[in-house]
Amino acid sequence: MESHRGGPIETVAKGSIDSNTDLRIIYTPGVARVCKAIEADPSLAKEYTGIANRVAIVTNGTAILGLGDIGPVAGMPVMEGKSAIFAEFTGISADAILVDTKDPKEFIKACQLIAPSFGAIQVEDVAAPECFEITRTLDETLPIPVFHDDQHGTATIVLAGLYSAAKLTGKDITTLKVAMCGAGAAGTAISDLLQRAGVADVILCDSVGAIYRGRTERMNPEKDALAERTNKDNVSGSLADIMVGADVFIGCSLPNLVSQDMVRSMNAEPIIFPLANPVSEISKPDALAAGAAVYADGRTMNNALAYPGIFRGALDCNCTTITFEMMMAAAEALADITPEGDLLPEMMDLATHSTVARAVMDACKE
Amino acid sequence: MESHRGGPIETVAKGSIDSNTDLRIIYTPGVARVCKAIEADPSLAKEYTGIANRVAIVTNGTAILGLGDIGPVAGMPVMEGKSAIFAEFTGISADAILVDTKDPKEFIKACQLIAPSFGAIQVEDVAAPECFEITRTLDETLPIPVFHDDQHGTATIVLAGLYSAAKLTGKDITTLKVAMCGAGAAGTAISDLLQRAGVADVILCDSVGAIYRGRTERMNPEKDALAERTNKDNVSGSLADIMVGADVFIGCSLPNLVSQDMVRSMNAEPIIFPLANPVSEISKPDALAAGAAVYADGRTMNNALAYPGIFRGALDCNCTTITFEMMMAAAEALADITPEGDLLPEMMDLATHSTVARAVMDACKE
Repeated sequence: MESHRGGPIETVAKGSIDSNTDLRIIYTPGVARVCKAIEADPSLAKEYTGIANRVAIVTNGTAILGLGDIGPVAGMPVMEGKSAIFAEFTGISADAILVDTKDPKEFIKACQLIAPSFGAIQVEDVAAPECFEITRTLDETLPIPVFHDDQHGTATIVLAGLYSAAKLTGKDITTLKVAMCGAGAAGTAISDLLQRAGVADVILCDSVGAIYRGRTERMNPEKDALAERTNKDNVSGSLADIMVGADVFIGCSLPNLVSQDMVRSMNAEPIIFPLANPVSEISKPDALAAGAAVYADGRTMNNALAYPGIFRGALDCNCTTITFEMMMAAAEALADITPEGDLLPEMMDLATHSTVARAVMDACKE
Repeated sequence: MESHRGGPIETVAKGSIDSNTDLRIIYTPGVARVCKAIEADPSLAKEYTGIANRVAIVTNGTAILGLGDIGPVAGMPVMEGKSAIFAEFTGISADAILVDTKDPKEFIKACQLIAPSFGAIQVEDVAAPECFEITRTLDETLPIPVFHDDQHGTATIVLAGLYSAAKLTGKDITTLKVAMCGAGAAGTAISDLLQRAGVADVILCDSVGAIYRGRTERMNPEKDALAERTNKDNVSGSLADIMVGADVFIGCSLPNLVSQDMVRSMNAEPIIFPLANPVSEISKPDALAAGAAVYADGRTMNNALAYPGIFRGALDCNCTTITFEMMMAAAEALADITPEGDLLPEMMDLATHSTVARAVMDACKE
């Protein structure tokens, strides 16, 4: 608690203002010249303001960590923490913007109106399914990249971990069958990115069981669409049924949903990524005792390995959107620099983030 | 231009993040504890986030300096300059928020939605008459102070300057007749504050002439209201007519509107505050040659003397609005610490801003 007293971030002047001359340059009358130059050529705003290095972290507080809908103000410490990480790892100025509405249309409108202040937007801890409409609409309507960390940041980390896990177990990623539990923001994005990366089959389960084409119970437009683009053989059944013969389990759901027997039913050398927060779907000792070859929970699979570098790269290449190709490049870069035997590289090493940024820029150029 | 490359401000972490332990305290999983505490007791947000020290500087770019409607992005350097001043003079974290709409209803809605992120809002360089509705509605509907610097910051500085000028010329402020030119944001607020402070008579002119009860030409609801609360004797006529026998001229209008003859027609030892930006209503040499006893233009009457301390005081006393009494206290404090013979105190002296803050807090308590 004490480390958060007053908040961990602040907005400061880059240079000190020590004289009236300094003041007249930074503020009136000197600033008028900069304003007029930008009025005449709006592209100069990238050069003569901080906009191009500024990210809005926007939330309505409806899905803060694993705590649920605790409201925007109670979610502020998470936004401030992300902002501190942005600053320390990449030098990006990130400003937490709490948007006090659960109506996606209002949320979108507010973000659109303030968007010219920023070079990119990070949507954060907004509940599914609203987060899908919000992120998609903002990304489509704004000339700057919009990235929902709980969807695409998590997916990037999981793919990076999967690359490493496949290497550790000698498996080929294109042959993997992945059983997933949780079809919210993270689950949806992970299934999409893994399939883009060539994973053979991904089957998502929710509280009802496998999501498949033709299912009628507790479906919605997002789940109908998921059924269309996952579950190659259109199987039905419970999570336990789906895990039989799977190579990988990925959980974005609830604590303790996975038993040792379910792990034992998987293919040889199963890869277990139970990401539920703060308590995972199966503990490490239980998973290892049941034969897991690789285990990583939400604490290991930390988004802060991905989003700082992804945004640094996106801002530096002036892209208007962050594509699946850029996320895949980030995941590959993370796997490439992971020390032999580990799943992911060291977060505290600034080279990790600059490597991700470089990979994202290169993918953007391609 | 070079001093504004990349913008003069940045968002930084207060402490460095040097280890995974630091990271787990600032971000997940440690941050969850802070979120839960605030969820249980929302008043803790003041203590364990930066919200209470954070100001939004909001603009739609419709009245940037004296440059007019150049749009929000071209206005960004002014907002960033104000933010740098906030940081340097008072340690407030001020974030520039460009709101991309000329519709006051949309502007208000966007500000209301993001307001929980901030401890106060500074409306900046929004054109009249929209600025009146925007500032009033936000201040009435939000639980945090909302202050339009072009109205109330300017009015505070003018009142401070007038206190000093009255002392220099041996005049009693309650006997002064003030002729003003310009009935926009600044003119309106100045006339209100001066009358609250006891000035005997204030007559505002616009492009048509004096604003009086019963005038029909080019009136609007804001000007009708102004006519009701100014111009004690309900006189009509041109600016030149109104200046005859006046003690003070205050201009918030256009360059070179005031002639030497108009100054000569005033009472003995006239006080001339021609604030038009960037070229004032009458130059200093012309005004002094025509007998001005005190002269100060917009460069001397710099809002940066008032708004940093006013916001520091308002944030520190947890007030929900900034009253005329608090502005008057700020003006008196500025006049009190002005060196003998000067109009205003030294802006670069941090004691100036802490004195203003203290006066605002004391007035709030009263």
